[in-house]
Amino acid sequence: MPVRTEFEELLGADHVLVDPGERLGRTGGLSYLDLLHARAGDEVPVPDAVLLPADPDQVQAVLEVCVRHDIGVVPFGGGTSVVGGVAALRGGKAAVVVLDLVRLDELVSVDPVSRIAVLRAGVRGPEAERLLAAHGYTLGHVPQSFERATIGGFAATRSAGQASSGYGRFEDMVAGLRLATPKGEWRLGVAPASAAGPDLRQLAVGSEGTLGVITEVALRVRPLPEQRHYEGWIVDGWAAGAAAVRKLAQDHALADVTRLSDVDETNVSFSLNAGLKTTALKTYLAARGIKNPCLLIVGWEGDVARCRRRTSAMLKCSGAVRIGKVLGESWRHGRFNGPRQRDALLDLGVCVETLETAAYWSNLDELHDAVRAALVASLGRAIVMCHVSHAYETGASLYFTVLTSRDDTDPVGQWQRAKAAACEAISGLGTISHHHAVGLDHAPYLEAEIGRIGLDVLRAAKSAVDPTGILNPGKLLC
Amino acid sequence: MPVRTEFEELLGADHVLVDPGERLGRTGGLSYLDLLHARAGDEVPVPDAVLLPADPDQVQAVLEVCVRHDIGVVPFGGGTSVVGGVAALRGGKAAVVVLDLVRLDELVSVDPVSRIAVLRAGVRGPEAERLLAAHGYTLGHVPQSFERATIGGFAATRSAGQASSGYGRFEDMVAGLRLATPKGEWRLGVAPASAAGPDLRQLAVGSEGTLGVITEVALRVRPLPEQRHYEGWIVDGWAAGAAAVRKLAQDHALADVTRLSDVDETNVSFSLNAGLKTTALKTYLAARGIKNPCLLIVGWEGDVARCRRRTSAMLKCSGAVRIGKVLGESWRHGRFNGPRQRDALLDLGVCVETLETAAYWSNLDELHDAVRAALVASLGRAIVMCHVSHAYETGASLYFTVLTSRDDTDPVGQWQRAKAAACEAISGLGTISHHHAVGLDHAPYLEAEIGRIGLDVLRAAKSAVDPTGILNPGKLLC
Repeated sequence: MPVRTEFEELLGADHVLVDPGERLGRTGGLSYLDLLHARAGDEVPVPDAVLLPADPDQVQAVLEVCVRHDIGVVPFGGGTSVVGGVAALRGGKAAVVVLDLVRLDELVSVDPVSRIAVLRAGVRGPEAERLLAAHGYTLGHVPQSFERATIGGFAATRSAGQASSGYGRFEDMVAGLRLATPKGEWRLGVAPASAAGPDLRQLAVGSEGTLGVITEVALRVRPLPEQRHYEGWIVDGWAAGAAAVRKLAQDHALADVTRLSDVDETNVSFSLNAGLKTTALKTYLAARGIKNPCLLIVGWEGDVARCRRRTSAMLKCSGAVRIGKVLGESWRHGRFNGPRQRDALLDLGVCVETLETAAYWSNLDELHDAVRAALVASLGRAIVMCHVSHAYETGASLYFTVLTSRDDTDPVGQWQRAKAAACEAISGLGTISHHHAVGLDHAPYLEAEIGRIGLDVLRAAKSAVDPTGILNPGKLLC
Repeated sequence: MPVRTEFEELLGADHVLVDPGERLGRTGGLSYLDLLHARAGDEVPVPDAVLLPADPDQVQAVLEVCVRHDIGVVPFGGGTSVVGGVAALRGGKAAVVVLDLVRLDELVSVDPVSRIAVLRAGVRGPEAERLLAAHGYTLGHVPQSFERATIGGFAATRSAGQASSGYGRFEDMVAGLRLATPKGEWRLGVAPASAAGPDLRQLAVGSEGTLGVITEVALRVRPLPEQRHYEGWIVDGWAAGAAAVRKLAQDHALADVTRLSDVDETNVSFSLNAGLKTTALKTYLAARGIKNPCLLIVGWEGDVARCRRRTSAMLKCSGAVRIGKVLGESWRHGRFNGPRQRDALLDLGVCVETLETAAYWSNLDELHDAVRAALVASLGRAIVMCHVSHAYETGASLYFTVLTSRDDTDPVGQWQRAKAAACEAISGLGTISHHHAVGLDHAPYLEAEIGRIGLDVLRAAKSAVDPTGILNPGKLLC
């Protein structure tokens, strides 16, 4: 029986897509280079078919067919990867299929006692929140990709949302997982914590489709917050801002959202905010001794009054000045807009991209300066803005946004060189990715982070579950 | 050159011990069966030599010699395993050596900005606290084995201390690790959190010496608490107590130490506490409507006033009654005594042992009852006491203490059958170990928890770093 017929018998003919538009629509991702390629009509790897399984059993059955025919499988959720994580690479296979998990869209169960909800992998961010809200719960996981990205994708990439200081990173929410693998189904997670050997959940989380297709995730949920309050503060300079955020993190007084912009990002935020009387604000701040304003957005969800009092008192002690709700709420309302604004900027001939890292506090300033310097050295005149969006007791993330005039003779090379320079600057000081994952783009830098032994361990784990290498060829491990 | 000469040239003759007493002193552990075997003078596996390397480089060099001569290596810290984790098994090798890490006893560095301290693997609990206190810091990691156990052992076994509600489990403190492996040195941990693939730190933590010898651990530290306050509360019955602890955990109001005893353990605590006027206490409680007293020990470290107010208010809402500092402080002072009391009980013909698990809240009552019933069914007349000592948003640990009259015709078989019955009861409802680890004793139950695929992944990871299988033969993976 031809393999296409096998897939059709398994999933129904409607769920085996070979139309070129459908196939082209499920490749690549949303990086600047992806957008450039799409605009230029460049040839990109396209899958031979798109499969739409209905449930975890069908995913498992599809994998068995793919093993038998030696077909590569690219799991696909929201398609929001900015690191090439869903590129339809063949990896030496005769064919490659994209496994679009869009039909795995159910809330499987809610355990109100343990506060655990089981969601299927294909549920998108807003739908997850809608399903959980019907039971009075929230995940509180709001990365910038929230509107399109899926539960399975969040788990596969160790996603971190904008409210991670309050709700934790996605991996902190994962109680259990169900994965389809070429060796059969794999279930993990029987207790909140365990000493029964290494925590294999933390091996599955972040495996980016290379160790199995995540089909269900059991997640810790929290009650829907009755109240929300977002506001802006200003601190005088990056160093003082980072110190203030560090103090909050180390004293366990972080707001649920805590986001510190550097001077350059603050200036851009001020000038882009139509509702803001920038001159009046700068006069107000100057009168309070603030020479280099850095914007700090803080947001509380839930027990606002109690938590806000403590954080605010500590921020005042750090010399920060409250500037009210306007900037906080405008940030909250616009927080998913970034990706949408890129198309307009691209139309204007702008090269615009983001990159991110994280480091221990004692390396953070050096890392900030090194990445900035590397980008400017590579790109020449460029706006390089940065913010801390995720803070921990021992360190924080850095998220850079870069804008420069696009070199239309070699736009791809222009960015590839700048990105390589930034990655070299990161390597040794911080992690190659705090929440964008590895995919294709960061794979060359993984060895510097986890060692040759780390790579060997990951390759061995992969061989154990996927001996013929059908799962997401070429990703994570290059 | 004979291998002993090689070791002597590497470490110095004084650090290669072949004296039978030294060898016998570094085998087995501290389980009830270990104690029985020691008393009976039973033959137990004894290493051919005890090696005392001075630093991580010497550990690495020793491993290279052991690979060349195909010698098994058992890493040894405090020797407090209660699951056979340091049994000197040969695993088919011609020889086995114990690598006692006692000389790796240094505080390597303190980073006050990131609040990270690097400690060598052989530092024992009290010494770690003494070294850190000189810089104003604490780990806050106080398992019952604290007085003897080491930093390396805590990491290798995913230890959880009695103040884990406040300070976290040991794995939560681990920022980075340095391991010696047959494939070379392996370093992990460049940032507090990362999306650069799976978190391999969480594979190294809990690997029980099978994936490498942990030589250094970078740990998140906290300021020494200025204040401490421990007190006792009483709740009416196990179900109400578990619900109260669950509420505290889910509302993020847990005290740093939170420990709930069931009715049986509470009765024993009352009767063993010489300073307590038990009759008066019971009258006092009865007047407050408490029929089935369950003792809840809560302890705060650091910002006592602020945290205590909130926890106390919530406990009052749960119907709990405060009984003051006496039981709290007496618990704190006696909290490392358990292991020492066993010898006296053994002298009296008592079979005494502990076992532990953890589960999601919705399984906790069933698990409590199932383990209790299994132990009583196997042992006949027995005292089975239990407490929750570690609570999470999604679940909690259960720690059982069992006392029964020892069957001196077959004391080993008596406990082996009871333990097997308890493990069967646990399997499927909770984890086979919350903080004692796998070692030898729990290895048969690991597959039920992580699946055949999980075992295959661990075996593959081991083959990648230890292809000839010299590292801690027979442990974790049976």
